[in-house]
Amino acid sequence: MKSTFNVGVIGVGRIGKIHIENIIRNVPGLKLKMVADINIDDQMKEWAKKVGVPLLIQDADDIFNDPGIDAVVIASSTDTHVKFIQKAAHLKKDVFSEKPIDTDLKLIKETLEIVKNEGIKLMIGFNRRFDKNFKRVREIVKSGQIGIPQIVKVTARDPALPSIEYLKSSGGMFFDMTIHDWDMVRFQTGSEVEEVYATGAALVDPEVGKIGDIDTAAIILKLDNGAIGIIDNSRQAIYGYDQRVEVFGSKGCAVADNEPTNTVRLYTAEKTKEDNIPYFFLERYMESYALELHSFFESLRYNNEPSPNGEDGLINAIIATAVQRSYKENRPVKISEINL
Amino acid sequence: MKSTFNVGVIGVGRIGKIHIENIIRNVPGLKLKMVADINIDDQMKEWAKKVGVPLLIQDADDIFNDPGIDAVVIASSTDTHVKFIQKAAHLKKDVFSEKPIDTDLKLIKETLEIVKNEGIKLMIGFNRRFDKNFKRVREIVKSGQIGIPQIVKVTARDPALPSIEYLKSSGGMFFDMTIHDWDMVRFQTGSEVEEVYATGAALVDPEVGKIGDIDTAAIILKLDNGAIGIIDNSRQAIYGYDQRVEVFGSKGCAVADNEPTNTVRLYTAEKTKEDNIPYFFLERYMESYALELHSFFESLRYNNEPSPNGEDGLINAIIATAVQRSYKENRPVKISEINL
Amino acid sequence: MKSTFNVGVIGVGRIGKIHIENIIRNVPGLKLKMVADINIDDQMKEWAKKVGVPLLIQDADDIFNDPGIDAVVIASSTDTHVKFIQKAAHLKKDVFSEKPIDTDLKLIKETLEIVKNEGIKLMIGFNRRFDKNFKRVREIVKSGQIGIPQIVKVTARDPALPSIEYLKSSGGMFFDMTIHDWDMVRFQTGSEVEEVYATGAALVDPEVGKIGDIDTAAIILKLDNGAIGIIDNSRQAIYGYDQRVEVFGSKGCAVADNEPTNTVRLYTAEKTKEDNIPYFFLERYMESYALELHSFFESLRYNNEPSPNGEDGLINAIIATAVQRSYKENRPVKISEINL
Amino acid sequence: MKSTFNVGVIGVGRIGKIHIENIIRNVPGLKLKMVADINIDDQMKEWAKKVGVPLLIQDADDIFNDPGIDAVVIASSTDTHVKFIQKAAHLKKDVFSEKPIDTDLKLIKETLEIVKNEGIKLMIGFNRRFDKNFKRVREIVKSGQIGIPQIVKVTARDPALPSIEYLKSSGGMFFDMTIHDWDMVRFQTGSEVEEVYATGAALVDPEVGKIGDIDTAAIILKLDNGAIGIIDNSRQAIYGYDQRVEVFGSKGCAVADNEPTNTVRLYTAEKTKEDNIPYFFLERYMESYALELHSFFESLRYNNEPSPNGEDGLINAIIATAVQRSYKENRPVKISEINL
Repeated sequence: MKSTFNVGVIGVGRIGKIHIENIIRNVPGLKLKMVADINIDDQMKEWAKKVGVPLLIQDADDIFNDPGIDAVVIASSTDTHVKFIQKAAHLKKDVFSEKPIDTDLKLIKETLEIVKNEGIKLMIGFNRRFDKNFKRVREIVKSGQIGIPQIVKVTARDPALPSIEYLKSSGGMFFDMTIHDWDMVRFQTGSEVEEVYATGAALVDPEVGKIGDIDTAAIILKLDNGAIGIIDNSRQAIYGYDQRVEVFGSKGCAVADNEPTNTVRLYTAEKTKEDNIPYFFLERYMESYALELHSFFESLRYNNEPSPNGEDGLINAIIATAVQRSYKENRPVKISEINL
Repeated sequence: MKSTFNVGVIGVGRIGKIHIENIIRNVPGLKLKMVADINIDDQMKEWAKKVGVPLLIQDADDIFNDPGIDAVVIASSTDTHVKFIQKAAHLKKDVFSEKPIDTDLKLIKETLEIVKNEGIKLMIGFNRRFDKNFKRVREIVKSGQIGIPQIVKVTARDPALPSIEYLKSSGGMFFDMTIHDWDMVRFQTGSEVEEVYATGAALVDPEVGKIGDIDTAAIILKLDNGAIGIIDNSRQAIYGYDQRVEVFGSKGCAVADNEPTNTVRLYTAEKTKEDNIPYFFLERYMESYALELHSFFESLRYNNEPSPNGEDGLINAIIATAVQRSYKENRPVKISEINL
Repeated sequence: MKSTFNVGVIGVGRIGKIHIENIIRNVPGLKLKMVADINIDDQMKEWAKKVGVPLLIQDADDIFNDPGIDAVVIASSTDTHVKFIQKAAHLKKDVFSEKPIDTDLKLIKETLEIVKNEGIKLMIGFNRRFDKNFKRVREIVKSGQIGIPQIVKVTARDPALPSIEYLKSSGGMFFDMTIHDWDMVRFQTGSEVEEVYATGAALVDPEVGKIGDIDTAAIILKLDNGAIGIIDNSRQAIYGYDQRVEVFGSKGCAVADNEPTNTVRLYTAEKTKEDNIPYFFLERYMESYALELHSFFESLRYNNEPSPNGEDGLINAIIATAVQRSYKENRPVKISEINL
Repeated sequence: MKSTFNVGVIGVGRIGKIHIENIIRNVPGLKLKMVADINIDDQMKEWAKKVGVPLLIQDADDIFNDPGIDAVVIASSTDTHVKFIQKAAHLKKDVFSEKPIDTDLKLIKETLEIVKNEGIKLMIGFNRRFDKNFKRVREIVKSGQIGIPQIVKVTARDPALPSIEYLKSSGGMFFDMTIHDWDMVRFQTGSEVEEVYATGAALVDPEVGKIGDIDTAAIILKLDNGAIGIIDNSRQAIYGYDQRVEVFGSKGCAVADNEPTNTVRLYTAEKTKEDNIPYFFLERYMESYALELHSFFESLRYNNEPSPNGEDGLINAIIATAVQRSYKENRPVKISEINL
């Protein structure tokens, strides 16, 4: 049984950097061999040197062509995911890819077939499954302590609206942001979504509405076991990154509240005060990124199917498609309506 | 300006008893003259004597016919509300009535016209508006501290399923239970509902489904200012009476969590434990019942329109009708679809 | 077995009014016959009328001389307690007296002997034993859930410094304020104090120091079972009435935190805020005053020894004397040093 | 200005390993050159290889004799601290040393004079000053938000009694455990201790008493600004590592509660439950160890006096000596009584 795996990383953006630092510092079983980015500049070079990247290259093919590289971590822009996954598959390299696989369901399906035929492993970066709080909720649910899940609630609110430029190419709020939330509902319950109803509006900034997107949403999911999922989203929670999960069932309820920044309470003449919750995903989910790569390593090492895998990526994209249709047509949409 | 008002109470059930004790002990401006119940037995007589009811009678007409009685508190069964409100109106007695006014929108409208024509005051018992926590949220919202409301969430779960007998005559979950929750959304935002989407199931007990009712529900409301309301309900939260409200807006978020039974935390070798939240509405909302009667007294004394009033009762019933239709037809229903 | 008892109340100050209202409204087994106060004015008369006092008199002897009165509630100034308790005892009337019995240990002892000889019941108003949170801690400790108590911590801080006039006649901080806290240590553990060490200072206001008193204190108690008590006090906690209890033992720890004013949390751009804790004892301990009178009633009805009783009053005064000596001489003082 | 410093580490025990991993992974400005331990075995060699130790040697003198090493981290047994600090000083190498410097005040003073004469930097490992919660309290206190500190409370309870063997050579509870706590009081207030009173007992295990030690303690400190410090300790808090700090002042109170293990609350039919707090210092203070080394690096880089420094080590040892005398003689002891 191999105990270390050589990896290459494609994409040195915000998420790519997190993965690279985690591989170097926190996942000893993964050995970073090289990192590719199409746009290398001096700042990136300096950063790479500082954190200890052994080789920074421009052409991702150098990674694919290196027979010593066992696995590829894909953190490049969404529109390149499918291409790189397929290439890795054909070269029998395992893949960890950022979500979403793509927004085109046909392309995803085609890619998963190649993955299957080539027999590689494909893990998709739904990192919140590795957050210690949400994992604890899942353990509790799985152990039966809350009985049969009946209502699952996910609150996910970002601290600040991204730029309109970003939003234009984001694939829309549901594909870009909410996709994590039904993945969380599926993760917590182990059940699949059968029908969705979505509503939303551009309440934070009317400019968002002008480009055909929304910044505030509420979604109801009907699961195959009869349970109901409820998601609420906003692109701008002025007090920080609001991330909560609640699973209510026949024997109890497990609630994961926001992580506190610290435990200090200040009592003053007017109010009792606490510091705000962590500002954004880098603070809140930092640990989860290391844990998901560690999980990827373990699935390589012990030859287990990774989780979440490509199938999860596909299902989450199908739900996104259904949610989008529900929002546009203002009616509940069955998942079975979505043709692949 | 009159500073005390003589009242009669109709109905000595669970809620009637609360109102009677509050009038005697906690609302000095209301003087209880008599109490009527169609089914008087020895236990009721004994109870009445113990708490200090001055006169217990069988015929509510004795209350209506007493010119010394200024106001009537109606806590009898739902199907008698309209009849008693109309009778009180014609005799120029002000009315505090339990919710709902009725489940028939036409009857409600007719009754409100009589109330208007006769010029009496009519307050409806949406007592949760007087809960100190929810009131505090409303104060914060009203003061502008959370900016413009964008998402309002109400969680309302009863501790235990009522008997199937009770449910059969309850008017269904939406009229019986959820009606409080959109009233809360309206109260918190000061906005009106324009469209609803409701889903639900009989997850607690299949017997509930057999009588055509549900015990678990999720509802999305679209408000006239663009904000979104989200309600989730269960008839059986095994850990107690789960009652929470959250208003999220452009400048912040106000969250009213459950009242703790006490503040004691017990740290043991296995777990950190707290006592469960209060079991049911008697424990949780006791104070709110006194405060709503006090508010009724003040509207009598200072000649103000009571709040919530008959109009609130009507609107809440219209929403219940729309929600019911949405659930049955599995589609969003506009409030404007509901013909009076 | 008698089920109702006629009572008279002496003293219509802040505490007297609380007891009077509780007797009228919340303890049905106690029937208020008359109330005496040496200084009756129009405001008091009006108040008495409003709450329903049947008879307001100036001379407490009218209460003692009324053979129909079973029990006396003493809420007059401390220097009258002993006189009234003795008088009541000789007339075979049971007594509920505010704390402290007196600051003179000899006088207390003499009085308790009369109480014993005459066979009346004497309950002392250490009301915090009836606070729902502290009672819950006691239940947990008694049930063995935290094992053998090893450390007991009491934090008791008043919201604002009383007037220097008040302090001059208060008997000093230990007799006036801290006496509740070692009573709490004794109540929680069921153990007695063997030795004390006290330190303190006038940190809030140097004027307090000028009259020979302190406003800030820390006290260590050694209990007869080896456990250690720790008390900290301040006369001025600018954020409200800070009242906490913690019992740490071999199997766990039970902590009663401050009661929240409400459960609302407000998340804003700068901070997360809560309303301050209740301002003072009227808000925090209101319920405990009703419960202690109810307990007094039950000890009358079922002929049980009241708790806390005169003996508790004596012991708490002995500890106060030892604490005062420890503070003055800056050394640990054994309780056995205190001669009666 | 030098931006990286070569370091050697002496001692590969529990704490030494933490420092070594932090230097390698989390403090880029410190470059680990070699590590010395008097007892090297295969397990240690394997660990060293795994984490990336460049050179593992037996003789600490190899570190001292390497002119390329700028600074030494001392994590060997307490009785070697003074010897190594002095040697490093004579060789002009800066030192980070674990606490305590020694238990002999004369030896400490002598060592600090050598440190001063040779002009090296000496930082002492009172790591809790770098805990994010306690640091936040200090920031609040320093900013004046709680006004003038009046009462400082430190609760520090270990989860489990160490072995009797360990305790025999630990220097006693005050030197081994409580020394962190008055350091915390000094850190939070910026004030110095003038007098102490200590009490304690062997309540956890009578065997501890037989070796002349205690396992439970309460200590009162009088500070030079009049404020009062209160510490309570236990060697065995069965629910985990209980570490809390509270600073109460003229304008408010800042309270750092225990870190939660996660934010999940589980509501069940009987109780509301949370997972216990972190079990011991490795979980709770892990981050603080990295931050203190980072602070050491910064004092090297910017040529600042480190904090806490040797003087803090001396003062904390003096207080330990006074506390021990207070406990033994059962009387308050002034710091000025302790002769150096």
